[in-house]
Amino acid sequence: MPSPTADIGLIGLAVMGENLVLNMESHGYTCAVFNRDTTKVDAFVTGRGAGKKFVGAHDLKDFVASIKRPRKIMMMVKAGKAVDDVIAQVAPFLEAGDILIDGGNTHFPDTTRRMKELAPKGIRFVGSGVSGGEEGAFKGPSIMPGGDATAWPEVKPIFQSIAAKVKDAGGAEAPCCDWVGPEGAGHFVKMVHNGIEYGDMQLICESYHLLKEALGLTPAELSGVFSKWNKGVLDSYLIEITSEILAYTDPETKQPLVDLILDTAGQKGTGKWTIDAATDNGVALTLIAEAVFSRCISAQKEERVAASQVLAGPQVQKAADRDQFIADVEMALYAAKIVSYAQGYALMAAQAKASNWELNNGGIALMWRGGCIIRSAFLGKIKEAFDKNPKLVNLLVDPFFAGELGKAQSGWRRVVGAAAASGIPVPAISSALAYYDGYRTARLPANLLQAQRDFFGAHTYERLDKPRGQFFHTNWTGRGGNTASTTYNV
Amino acid sequence: MPSPTADIGLIGLAVMGENLVLNMESHGYTCAVFNRDTTKVDAFVTGRGAGKKFVGAHDLKDFVASIKRPRKIMMMVKAGKAVDDVIAQVAPFLEAGDILIDGGNTHFPDTTRRMKELAPKGIRFVGSGVSGGEEGAFKGPSIMPGGDATAWPEVKPIFQSIAAKVKDAGGAEAPCCDWVGPEGAGHFVKMVHNGIEYGDMQLICESYHLLKEALGLTPAELSGVFSKWNKGVLDSYLIEITSEILAYTDPETKQPLVDLILDTAGQKGTGKWTIDAATDNGVALTLIAEAVFSRCISAQKEERVAASQVLAGPQVQKAADRDQFIADVEMALYAAKIVSYAQGYALMAAQAKASNWELNNGGIALMWRGGCIIRSAFLGKIKEAFDKNPKLVNLLVDPFFAGELGKAQSGWRRVVGAAAASGIPVPAISSALAYYDGYRTARLPANLLQAQRDFFGAHTYERLDKPRGQFFHTNWTGRGGNTASTTYNV
Repeated sequence: MPSPTADIGLIGLAVMGENLVLNMESHGYTCAVFNRDTTKVDAFVTGRGAGKKFVGAHDLKDFVASIKRPRKIMMMVKAGKAVDDVIAQVAPFLEAGDILIDGGNTHFPDTTRRMKELAPKGIRFVGSGVSGGEEGAFKGPSIMPGGDATAWPEVKPIFQSIAAKVKDAGGAEAPCCDWVGPEGAGHFVKMVHNGIEYGDMQLICESYHLLKEALGLTPAELSGVFSKWNKGVLDSYLIEITSEILAYTDPETKQPLVDLILDTAGQKGTGKWTIDAATDNGVALTLIAEAVFSRCISAQKEERVAASQVLAGPQVQKAADRDQFIADVEMALYAAKIVSYAQGYALMAAQAKASNWELNNGGIALMWRGGCIIRSAFLGKIKEAFDKNPKLVNLLVDPFFAGELGKAQSGWRRVVGAAAASGIPVPAISSALAYYDGYRTARLPANLLQAQRDFFGAHTYERLDKPRGQFFHTNWTGRGGNTASTTYNV
Repeated sequence: MPSPTADIGLIGLAVMGENLVLNMESHGYTCAVFNRDTTKVDAFVTGRGAGKKFVGAHDLKDFVASIKRPRKIMMMVKAGKAVDDVIAQVAPFLEAGDILIDGGNTHFPDTTRRMKELAPKGIRFVGSGVSGGEEGAFKGPSIMPGGDATAWPEVKPIFQSIAAKVKDAGGAEAPCCDWVGPEGAGHFVKMVHNGIEYGDMQLICESYHLLKEALGLTPAELSGVFSKWNKGVLDSYLIEITSEILAYTDPETKQPLVDLILDTAGQKGTGKWTIDAATDNGVALTLIAEAVFSRCISAQKEERVAASQVLAGPQVQKAADRDQFIADVEMALYAAKIVSYAQGYALMAAQAKASNWELNNGGIALMWRGGCIIRSAFLGKIKEAFDKNPKLVNLLVDPFFAGELGKAQSGWRRVVGAAAASGIPVPAISSALAYYDGYRTARLPANLLQAQRDFFGAHTYERLDKPRGQFFHTNWTGRGGNTASTTYNV
């Protein structure tokens, strides 16, 4: 048996896996590669990997033997049962101290479970979110690892070398990869990232829809608007590609391609998981929920076409001042985006508390700052906010963001009003405004709700003029009993 | 052993259980009663049950023996493990053909599981939602049974006799209880009922908040508004009790009690389950989600009080025409309520399809028409809609409701605009409007979203000018590949 030469091994040669190891190899690492269908191994080492430092293996025993100890093995396979299967197959060849990394889109409780299952064998498990798609994997992704913290010093050099790089506030280059936290924290943060991505995309779609309907802008004009926005506070990858998309002409029809694309989007997986985590933790994640639900509505194309003939709407009111309206929509998008990230961070704080994790909030913003789909200048500001105050309760009350929201709110409110008057749906923009107004309202109408619950179910209530923790029941009508409920819960 | 005399047995003598058997007894049924803490059995038969046809039992064997065959046994115990425990304890005494009924607030997949577990023993399992709180249980609840359909003819006389009664469209008296469907369908429909209850309560709270802030109405004046609304299209139990609550004076302080109640509400259980079911089925259940999330925000009282000092808002703009504004809010509440029920029915249709259930949509409306918290005149209209067209795709496009929405929409839109301008949060009312406008929009902006997904992840898209089911990928920049993605899914 030759002595092991590989710095790291990769299982799963789909495009993401291939691009990741090509990235590693280009940074000087020798990579062992394995795939269940071994023809892919041969195709890779004689194809894209030809002449490079790859060690192709046709069985897992040879694969493992080719990696230097303690071994670092990264799995890039479909989330779910396939991960458990690969673990079961490779684990017998591993030794105490070896490191197994799941780089797929795994649901975070699975990562926590697998880490606990492998710990007794001394196998150090890492669950790492990897974002940036195929291009990101090759050129520099955002990498969000969590799990067995003792593995981090050994994985760190490789991950940070291949990750995207951004300039931090001081101008130094920083990798978009850092240790996230214990157990499934890495995959959890990747899940929230994906949820935020749903929200960002929905906000852009609503802004596009508003400008198209209320101003009648052409795709070329819209491309110009987004291009201009990309030089301001909204500077981000998704705004940039939106501008490029809107400028693209279909070679076949010579029309703007965006106008020819069917308006139905799917949703599953991480969007749903993010909402589940929010309801589990009692966190108002309204914007991402509206974004996921908007995809559901988009998918009902035939129902919508039929309903458009039946349900009444107002005339669209063309905006009188074109430049003012564009500026207002920019502010609505910006403010709603701040709310979305505030909600996402609130979810992370709640899950961290529930799981007894310490999350590095500023580090997470830095990891998202480059490499991934939601990368933006804006995330630099979030990092600054958490650097200034690591215990920030909610992003909205950070002085910078509170100030930005204060400046943006007039335009944001005008947009919500105009959309309602014109019948243009803006579920995410208006939901964000409702959250903002709810969060800054000292006295909400839940007093009435508590009264209702006490009226029909004797659920009791607390009083403003009595200490918290004292519960009162009122026999509101004289008909009911004086006994508080112990059984029926709504 | 004396021969069995009881028509039905009940396990679990908390208030709901007690009131249910008192209701049964008053309709001529002899009821056996058992409770784990047997002092409750004695207290009941010598207390509230004294001189009535109850058979108290101190052990499960005697309890079962006292019930006529095939036995009908209803459990009113806390949902979750307690139900499994009681089943394990009582099942050894049951015979093939006996009927076991879970009347608690059980999560519907548990009911499906239990029915399947008990079927091989010949035990017929029924999971039944019971709504109406303690008063309803005693005077006539809404009962929503599902499970083993062969049990229904035997349970029906008892359940329909104790259920609330309403007049149907023809003026005949109808019980608010009918067979819902197989497996966990009864508990599922009860869960949706509870979700809708969350939505109804939130809509009332938002309306109250609007009238209080934008018109400065006193609780007594507000009570008058709700009392008036209760004579119109909003005629319902929750509007009625809201009027009573607002009129109630605290005996201690002589102030309106509602003004003294703390504005924090809890959420858990069925609200979360309903949202989970919506995301599982890809159904846009936006209003109930916003209602659940609003409770989360209400619970952050200290954060809100602090944020109210930091986050800028506009001056509240007092409504110029008081009567017009009240009428607009009434229409906003009414229209949003129609949307909420449409979403709830869409969820039921989707789950029925996924579970291969046949649900009686009109029957469900009739079951909710009386007895339960969401009882209203409005549900009679829903029953009529489904009676006219059992295959109605969405409640919104029923001719009656489409007409009502058409009449209500102007006021509804003005309210959303006024709330946005004044900084009053109306998450449920505005989310409902966004759903209405989304559902009636033939062309939504999801075309841009699909372009984005294809741009960064090669996810492909369909085209308006090509048949559905053909998927296209564009190399948008010339930089990426021409290969569609197979691995990375957002």
